[in-house]
Amino acid sequence: MTYDPANIFAKILRGEIPAHKVYEDETALVMMDIFPQSRGHTLVIPKSASRNLLDADPAVLSAVMPLVQRVATAAKAATDADGIRVAQFNEAAAGQTVYHLHFHVIPMFEGVEMGAHGRNQADNDELAALAGKIAAQL
Amino acid sequence: MTYDPANIFAKILRGEIPAHKVYEDETALVMMDIFPQSRGHTLVIPKSASRNLLDADPAVLSAVMPLVQRVATAAKAATDADGIRVAQFNEAAAGQTVYHLHFHVIPMFEGVEMGAHGRNQADNDELAALAGKIAAQL
Repeated sequence: MTYDPANIFAKILRGEIPAHKVYEDETALVMMDIFPQSRGHTLVIPKSASRNLLDADPAVLSAVMPLVQRVATAAKAATDADGIRVAQFNEAAAGQTVYHLHFHVIPMFEGVEMGAHGRNQADNDELAALAGKIAAQL
Repeated sequence: MTYDPANIFAKILRGEIPAHKVYEDETALVMMDIFPQSRGHTLVIPKSASRNLLDADPAVLSAVMPLVQRVATAAKAATDADGIRVAQFNEAAAGQTVYHLHFHVIPMFEGVEMGAHGRNQADNDELAALAGKIAAQL
């Protein structure tokens, strides 16, 4: 299993295609998932190149997890969610669709089932508004 | 939301009830989930008391994620899985059932759907054998 720098998140990290960015620093980019499984579904993407968790630099994981925590707290507050799922998929059998390490931060709401991954593309204006709301809570 | 030291993982950490342990160090305990969502479903439980990710010490998250990575690699090798899901649930709406921070490491197999969380208790002998296999890969 190797890293392919033509994956869509690498292109976003290089600024070649746009994204609904929430936050960016030297370690990671935070953006809205355009195929959200719930309202406020956010991705935390380490900038360091790795296919997924299995080939990641452990130091990158240590650096990024406090940010995942901050994003979880911010997404919960911004969406008034009842809970947060954090998920990270490795290889196709686990549901991975983009082969650059990323963490899903998924707000959960009482009585609302989570949508299927990658099924429906969200409205751009709504994503932009959510990105702004979550950024304001970070 | 507060931390209740009577939760079942706190009891396991204190040695008050048994578990199928895979690994233990000063930071965390690794054990088999007794209601596995797949063969080899393993839990990484930081020893530090927090309800979930939202109230965790960021330093604890940084310390534990390299271990989550090691467990993911070991569980994949031990079960010959095709992929690994890492999941972490915060509050009931997100599927959290035990209110002490833990990370699920769930081996995934091509063509096999993941079981529902907490539905069926696994056979103790099978869990003990899996714990040994994963420990041997760590």
